[in-house]
Amino acid sequence: MTDTMTQPSQRAAHLVDRLQARICAGAERLEPQARFTVDDWTSAGAGGAIRGRGSTRVIAGDVFEKGGVNVSVVEGDRLPPSLLSQRPELDACGFFAAGVSVVIHPANPYAPTAHCNYRYFEARPRDGSEGGAWWFGGGADLTPYYPVLDDVRHFHGTLRAACDRHDPLFYPGFKAWCDEYFFLKHRGETRGVGGIFYDYLDERGFGESNARTVFAQPRSFEQTIAFMEDAGNAFVDAYFPLVERHMHDPFGERERQFQLTRRGRYVEFNLIYDRGTHFGLQSGGRTESILMSLPPLVRWAYAEVPEPGTPEAVLLSYLRPRDWFAQDPFAS
Amino acid sequence: MTDTMTQPSQRAAHLVDRLQARICAGAERLEPQARFTVDDWTSAGAGGAIRGRGSTRVIAGDVFEKGGVNVSVVEGDRLPPSLLSQRPELDACGFFAAGVSVVIHPANPYAPTAHCNYRYFEARPRDGSEGGAWWFGGGADLTPYYPVLDDVRHFHGTLRAACDRHDPLFYPGFKAWCDEYFFLKHRGETRGVGGIFYDYLDERGFGESNARTVFAQPRSFEQTIAFMEDAGNAFVDAYFPLVERHMHDPFGERERQFQLTRRGRYVEFNLIYDRGTHFGLQSGGRTESILMSLPPLVRWAYAEVPEPGTPEAVLLSYLRPRDWFAQDPFAS
Repeated sequence: MTDTMTQPSQRAAHLVDRLQARICAGAERLEPQARFTVDDWTSAGAGGAIRGRGSTRVIAGDVFEKGGVNVSVVEGDRLPPSLLSQRPELDACGFFAAGVSVVIHPANPYAPTAHCNYRYFEARPRDGSEGGAWWFGGGADLTPYYPVLDDVRHFHGTLRAACDRHDPLFYPGFKAWCDEYFFLKHRGETRGVGGIFYDYLDERGFGESNARTVFAQPRSFEQTIAFMEDAGNAFVDAYFPLVERHMHDPFGERERQFQLTRRGRYVEFNLIYDRGTHFGLQSGGRTESILMSLPPLVRWAYAEVPEPGTPEAVLLSYLRPRDWFAQDPFAS
Repeated sequence: MTDTMTQPSQRAAHLVDRLQARICAGAERLEPQARFTVDDWTSAGAGGAIRGRGSTRVIAGDVFEKGGVNVSVVEGDRLPPSLLSQRPELDACGFFAAGVSVVIHPANPYAPTAHCNYRYFEARPRDGSEGGAWWFGGGADLTPYYPVLDDVRHFHGTLRAACDRHDPLFYPGFKAWCDEYFFLKHRGETRGVGGIFYDYLDERGFGESNARTVFAQPRSFEQTIAFMEDAGNAFVDAYFPLVERHMHDPFGERERQFQLTRRGRYVEFNLIYDRGTHFGLQSGGRTESILMSLPPLVRWAYAEVPEPGTPEAVLLSYLRPRDWFAQDPFAS
């Protein structure tokens, strides 16, 4: 007798539900009144091409101008093109995906925006034969407007500690991957101060096929899902204390306008570059859930560059890959 | 002795300058005080990969919350990837491009947003041999928030008249092309009420290679540039009277919020789908000039759908391809 509850896909589905609950609780603890609205959905895929369920949770309050914590657990008959182009050998496969995706835009410009996403993916041969593949992906990153080095170190340090409990290669590898991924080529800037990012983490260790060295560190499903849980929990500890630190900082119109302008870069990254967004829109996902990541209010001005020496100009020095734990991260 | 002033590329460069001046004058006539700021630039391409000049003109006033009228005249050693994938036979060519690009976001939500772009393109073999190609592309389209059928008919009618003076096949073909191009697949909506759009208009008539029937209507450079001038002038007559009609319409917070939300769709189109934006960013163009098209202030709300029967719900019935000159465009 098979206990279906212990199938890897079920395990991952339960984990994303748990992470969603913890992250929502972490946000609500700071919010005086507003609570997450819950929008549960099933089988939203166009024409039945994808099937599944999800829960989109959105908060709009005093501390969090907009926050979204989205779970989706879906399966489909074909891998979306954005994925197939990276793993062409899985052409004959359908897929299962369970993920939690979080983007939080605080109201106070001194409180950073943050994002995390943790997901489990299975490719399954459509004809029921052996083969296919499974892997984990995810990450968390921070986007401050008025960055503080101590905050950046707290965020990275918390994620690093979670990584180090599993593999000393994780943090350095995933930190570099994050800097590389969250990069706006047309602006010559990273999206924020980074964090960790990984994909195709499977029994071979980790590595992005066709692009990145695969580390020969054998790793079981058990070990990998344990890392996902740890990394997901670490997001709560890495991020919400920073919001708590800054949610009451006094600010005026100047800081607000700068925040709105910088949020424009966030939109540019998500719509031009983000693989997750393209995957979602291509696979016939729920548009409203996918674009939940976009900030509530955004401004675009023409050729507005902060004056040297202003607090706004400081941000630019943070938008390059840096070793945040170096004595002087800005030395080079 | 060759008069370089009569070379096709020079002719096109002068035309885009003239169109820029006329369009700016059309906008300034309605604006009580604000004037366009002029930002002229040369050779902005990264690493010298593209060379040229341009003039970015931006207005921010009472009537026009943000308007940009941008000219660029550039050449480069290689066709950008987005173009090469459509015309792979031009692999051994450099290019020359002269274009004018306009996006205008009025302050009043009852006044529509509009866009136009007219451009001339030459592909030139890098080794100086014969061959290569030239073509024209462009179009104009309207994005209302509170649409009025008479306005839509005025806009389309003015463009249609300009098209009809050149070829009776132009308006029906370019109108359909516009509906097809300015479509947000993930929303199931057109960007606005359309207008005209064309590309690869050359001596063979017109047609988008690999995708669209080529009409066997031979057409000289002279005829084609004359159409570009006519279509560019028609934009002024098609659009600014609509702003004049609505720039003093009373409105409140409700209309403003709806306008900001709908502007989000504009951003989504430009960053996810627009070939012009991707061409510009890929070819190392000036980011600020390319993203000048983005609205000044934008809002994203989660799953906000207008109540049936409200003025906001009316817009949705306009966001499908329609024959605006039919007795009842909404009959089918």
